[in-house]
Amino acid sequence: MKEKTLESKVIFEGKVIKVRVDKVQLPDGSLSEREIVERLDGVSILPITADYKVLLIKQYRHAIGKVIYRLPGGSINKKDKSPEEAAQRELFEELGYKAKKLDFLFDSGGSGTIKQTVYHYLATGLYVPNEERLKDNELLEIFPTDLNEAVKMALEAQFPNPAFSLMILMVEDRLNKKAF
Amino acid sequence: MKEKTLESKVIFEGKVIKVRVDKVQLPDGSLSEREIVERLDGVSILPITADYKVLLIKQYRHAIGKVIYRLPGGSINKKDKSPEEAAQRELFEELGYKAKKLDFLFDSGGSGTIKQTVYHYLATGLYVPNEERLKDNELLEIFPTDLNEAVKMALEAQFPNPAFSLMILMVEDRLNKKAF
Repeated sequence: MKEKTLESKVIFEGKVIKVRVDKVQLPDGSLSEREIVERLDGVSILPITADYKVLLIKQYRHAIGKVIYRLPGGSINKKDKSPEEAAQRELFEELGYKAKKLDFLFDSGGSGTIKQTVYHYLATGLYVPNEERLKDNELLEIFPTDLNEAVKMALEAQFPNPAFSLMILMVEDRLNKKAF
Repeated sequence: MKEKTLESKVIFEGKVIKVRVDKVQLPDGSLSEREIVERLDGVSILPITADYKVLLIKQYRHAIGKVIYRLPGGSINKKDKSPEEAAQRELFEELGYKAKKLDFLFDSGGSGTIKQTVYHYLATGLYVPNEERLKDNELLEIFPTDLNEAVKMALEAQFPNPAFSLMILMVEDRLNKKAF
């Protein structure tokens, strides 16, 4: 059931994305084109405090023109030695915390058009490290929310990214099963 | 907390995506650039049979180079008069069914970089319509799976797209609460 890439042409190479068009041969022999966006890999973190509060972020998102609630996260930079290091960096830049424990939840591989791996983590044992904080150029507000309330928001799909909902529902399921 | 778009330049206009770079002014007055991918809006459908089987699709995905399990869905075409019509069309093209009932679950608005709305539906009352079937150029296998098993797969994030997991978990939650 494999497609064969006959030709690959880079159309645009930006800071965050690279766009290419592939000429492919389908298994039945016919030819087709695929428009592919390669995006920097990313991390997404669900930070939960000792009293089961989820640290949500309230922020304005340019591309969709709305204020949204999201989880901390961002692109993995060249300087990050691993996705875990990127997760700790984003957690610190966005919230001012680091985590004693990061539990890997899942990665997602994009769709047919978007090629990007995002690594999703649960962060617990939050502490304020004794380091200078390199703040993002972003304007955000921390919005602590009871885990039960976050689960309700997740089941109502109130987050712009379904992955945030899934992280919350996975963690609630595992806490119920005492799997952490 | 609003950003102001000062300039917008289209870099690439393909069949499925349009890429632009916006020059924006942040609320603190500083300037920044945003790379934005506009993608055709889409639909995603969770088809459940009368005996609570989820009709998953097993398919090869070019962009990630893997065989994956997914839900039916695709882009909304110009000919589709509504997202619901697109959902019925995709359901028919991909599985050979239409649905007597479509329940809207949620829409997702993309990330900071990807601008796209995807409409997510539960499809029940599946039937084989007395119409000629326009088959996709896609190679896929229907993979009927017990709802309980699909919930397990969702909580283990076995689907490439977290939205598929969320659809399954939302529907299970509502069925438990008899909210349909």
